[in-house]
Amino acid sequence: MAFITEAQLRASLHKGIPNPYPLTNSHKLTPAARDFLHSRGIRIENPKTSAIASESSSSADIPVGVSNRHIHLSAEHVELLFGSGYELNPLKELSQKGQFAAKETVSLVGPKGMLKDVRILGPARGATQVEISRTDGFQIGIHPPLRLSGDIADTPGIALYGPNGIVVIEQGVIVAKAHIHMSQEDAVAFRVANGDRVLVQSMGQRPLLFKDVIIRVHPQYSLDFHIDTDEANAGFIRQGDKAVIVGKSS
Amino acid sequence: MAFITEAQLRASLHKGIPNPYPLTNSHKLTPAARDFLHSRGIRIENPKTSAIASESSSSADIPVGVSNRHIHLSAEHVELLFGSGYELNPLKELSQKGQFAAKETVSLVGPKGMLKDVRILGPARGATQVEISRTDGFQIGIHPPLRLSGDIADTPGIALYGPNGIVVIEQGVIVAKAHIHMSQEDAVAFRVANGDRVLVQSMGQRPLLFKDVIIRVHPQYSLDFHIDTDEANAGFIRQGDKAVIVGKSS
Repeated sequence: MAFITEAQLRASLHKGIPNPYPLTNSHKLTPAARDFLHSRGIRIENPKTSAIASESSSSADIPVGVSNRHIHLSAEHVELLFGSGYELNPLKELSQKGQFAAKETVSLVGPKGMLKDVRILGPARGATQVEISRTDGFQIGIHPPLRLSGDIADTPGIALYGPNGIVVIEQGVIVAKAHIHMSQEDAVAFRVANGDRVLVQSMGQRPLLFKDVIIRVHPQYSLDFHIDTDEANAGFIRQGDKAVIVGKSS
Repeated sequence: MAFITEAQLRASLHKGIPNPYPLTNSHKLTPAARDFLHSRGIRIENPKTSAIASESSSSADIPVGVSNRHIHLSAEHVELLFGSGYELNPLKELSQKGQFAAKETVSLVGPKGMLKDVRILGPARGATQVEISRTDGFQIGIHPPLRLSGDIADTPGIALYGPNGIVVIEQGVIVAKAHIHMSQEDAVAFRVANGDRVLVQSMGQRPLLFKDVIIRVHPQYSLDFHIDTDEANAGFIRQGDKAVIVGKSS
């Protein structure tokens, strides 16, 4: 087994790199090399053997879902922002059943700046909730606490600008706490229970251990380790990468 | 010992929060509460007892240095960007002896965007090196590999815009690999050697373990755990927070 490095690929740039890039079973790409090809739109012909992480693949791997900043709206706020009687239009299904990324976006405005075209997730909920990263917070001057989704008591508010109006919420902005969605069958297999805190390892080029990840169990949940863009970028992690539970949090 | 939470502080906002905020020895602030006061410019009267992390404080704690995007310039590039015979003007000393943040900034331009007013660190070096976060990279469309400072072979290039001219470098853009600077005395105390890879734990509200941190030993180095803004924001870590080495990397 030999590794193909990003430096080797870069050195062969002048000769041209085939697309798709053929990868034999006796070679593997380093994560940086995979990034290198990915950023140039070059497909890998045998992607199942392309990641170092796949060496340790097992049924215990958990797919990572990276959440960019997004908004859950109440039905009332959907109408205020988009017009009376308006309903959100699904753009893409999400990993959790019934959830979708909507075609609609709004802008978020804080005391120091604005985040444009922030995606709305549907369907409409009971209370409006805005999930941003800490990096986003520095940009707009709002510093929300770390919370699980739904736990919005005593969080900061924000202004939402839509095509039909402006909504100012008094509370509802959070940085989402990392968590794993799973079914009851998964919980049995992983030997964890709803509310447990576990230690989760990512397997990118910049490996991280997340010390305080919450287990959320529900019959309808698909297995998914949810992190935000700061956590993803700190670990060079991409949507669909794998992570493993390595123990309970102390 | 009782904890004062961010929710409690927020609930007392309408009554007004004193500045400085008095903290008795029998109370501690949670990290979120500390953030809450900090973001409102409220000082804490007894800061030594304010962080949960300080409970486990010991001589083994390592101060964290958070590096925002920055540029090291060669003497030749200083002149091309700022004018013939120009020398960088120190704005602020850095933790490492002789290093300084310069008054000068330039803009970085990539295929998808621009990063304005990026700080230059001095003094001038042999080769120009640009250190950005992965988040920055997505913004400007440049995806540099993870490297230790100085290791710029086969890295992407970029355009630098200064008041006197434009410099295009063929290579030199990296995402900095997390590392710990220390003296030889520190290395003896921590039982590590130059080049060792260690596991480092942060102690913020979102605790992380950094799995692959490189030890860099030099007689002139001050003790400092260097991470970038993605790593800091993923861990709710601020400049001057403490981290601990919890073991060697496997």
